[in-house]
Amino acid sequence: MIVKTEHAFIRAFAAAVGKKEGEGPLGRQFDYVDTDDRFGQPTWEMAESECARLALSLALAKLPDAAADLLIAGDLQNQCVSSAYGLLDFEIPYLGIYGACSNLTEGMALGAMLLSGGAAKRVALVTSSHNCAAERQFRSPIEYGGQRTPTAQWTVTGAGGYILDAAHGDVRICDCLIGRVQDVGLRDLTDMGAAMAPAAADTLFRYFEESGTRPEDYDAVITGDLGAHGSLLLGTLCRDRDLPLENHFDCGNLIYDASQDVHAGGSGCGCSATVLGAKFLPMLGRGELSSVLMLATGALMSKDSVAQGRSIPAIAHLVHLAHR
Amino acid sequence: MIVKTEHAFIRAFAAAVGKKEGEGPLGRQFDYVDTDDRFGQPTWEMAESECARLALSLALAKLPDAAADLLIAGDLQNQCVSSAYGLLDFEIPYLGIYGACSNLTEGMALGAMLLSGGAAKRVALVTSSHNCAAERQFRSPIEYGGQRTPTAQWTVTGAGGYILDAAHGDVRICDCLIGRVQDVGLRDLTDMGAAMAPAAADTLFRYFEESGTRPEDYDAVITGDLGAHGSLLLGTLCRDRDLPLENHFDCGNLIYDASQDVHAGGSGCGCSATVLGAKFLPMLGRGELSSVLMLATGALMSKDSVAQGRSIPAIAHLVHLAHR
Repeated sequence: MIVKTEHAFIRAFAAAVGKKEGEGPLGRQFDYVDTDDRFGQPTWEMAESECARLALSLALAKLPDAAADLLIAGDLQNQCVSSAYGLLDFEIPYLGIYGACSNLTEGMALGAMLLSGGAAKRVALVTSSHNCAAERQFRSPIEYGGQRTPTAQWTVTGAGGYILDAAHGDVRICDCLIGRVQDVGLRDLTDMGAAMAPAAADTLFRYFEESGTRPEDYDAVITGDLGAHGSLLLGTLCRDRDLPLENHFDCGNLIYDASQDVHAGGSGCGCSATVLGAKFLPMLGRGELSSVLMLATGALMSKDSVAQGRSIPAIAHLVHLAHR
Repeated sequence: MIVKTEHAFIRAFAAAVGKKEGEGPLGRQFDYVDTDDRFGQPTWEMAESECARLALSLALAKLPDAAADLLIAGDLQNQCVSSAYGLLDFEIPYLGIYGACSNLTEGMALGAMLLSGGAAKRVALVTSSHNCAAERQFRSPIEYGGQRTPTAQWTVTGAGGYILDAAHGDVRICDCLIGRVQDVGLRDLTDMGAAMAPAAADTLFRYFEESGTRPEDYDAVITGDLGAHGSLLLGTLCRDRDLPLENHFDCGNLIYDASQDVHAGGSGCGCSATVLGAKFLPMLGRGELSSVLMLATGALMSKDSVAQGRSIPAIAHLVHLAHR
């Protein structure tokens, strides 16, 4: 069911990213670029916490009062500890979410529904990922130097902090659609895009059907981190349903350039969180884009679940954003 | 900020539990008791998924139409895979949450706010834990046979499925208060109660202050899984603030009896989820209790974060429940 969110705007945003992301095509649009991905911390996991803390600090600093009623946050680390530790000092009532790389739009949809329903006046949203923390948790430590496959994506080191507001902001969250978990039976931990594309398609098809719209009714259809392979598959699924995506952008295909050797593109909660905010929000704010659909996509397996022979379930949540 | 939830009721509930829980004092009040904790599955992790699936199936079966607009779920497994796999077949739009053992009241508060704000008419909520899956993930595999300390709690094998409704149900969710992450610097993975008690106290104190009420204004103040040690500490913290808890119950102290050798009591998402539903909801439904505060408490560390020397952050979310 598409939920109209009448009182939900994006008021402020900030991104903190690692060195490689700073060297990419969007590098100058991020608020903070770390010099070496360590963010001054002794472990990769703590570096991610610090990155998340920076993103929220910088976003709150763009408000006159630096305050929020609720904080929604999540990440990829086991038990979402990047968020729990990194955002501890803010003392804002905290709702932890887990949608893997779909966290951005899960949190944005939730925040928009809570604002529109009157449960809060302002909601902060943070989601993060760190390449070195994610690689050793989901695959192998980077020191192992495993060969990467052509479909492998590069987990983004970065965090996005968003301030959603019931009344103020240049970008409107018009409505949202919560995704359903989809599992087409894939088991390849180095091809997340293929596992997530069917989830993006399911949510898009449900949205188009219920709203009576088509892809060309929007300036852009943006996905989170399908990367090159997942984007190709989503394109095929949409063409098969006679809903060709001529205006599709994927954050995973935008954050790095071809010289950065990331194979199928970027991924991770930090990918969609930083690219939506740094690239698309300013265009929506200025009215260069008037209406877009944003779907962050998440793969919901764990390393253990795949080791036990289970396939990779995935989900995608949609928010419809427009120039105010 | 306490959020009033005018249109939120608990309409149906079901619990599925393991063998040991079935042998405890509440055994006859659970809907399904497994014969051997395996739930017919080849791994402990898949057993938990099946337990969660059963709890939601049995709860939905108590409705005339077995339908819900949204499903909120979470668990303790890395990347919350118990919920992702276990609830896949329901095809209900899915919001993953992570608040560790606070999932019950995080989800109930979220669901109540979404229902009251008009974002849904009916929300299903499931949370689960499994002793053997949790022990090998957070501590040691049970085959290791490690000695348990006096403060150690026994992770409950069980899941609770709740159906929240905007209009129907005998128990009203009157209002809720989202917790703040608290970290008092404890590092003992075998004493979760001590880490969580300050979080429960923080939320309770904020609630009493903002509402202008005291513990004795409610028939019961119920916590999720502080166990014997955490309950003692919460009692002390409350007495120190001149808010003695004469009517305190902890689900972790109720699910097993003294003969079951669980040391400081039960714990895990499944503890509060099954005990609130099986013991207290019927009393609220019949009016034997008229108004209670329920706080599920969660410890937000991971095994790795503690191994890296970090302390244990915790959180507690509150829902105020009343006889309709």
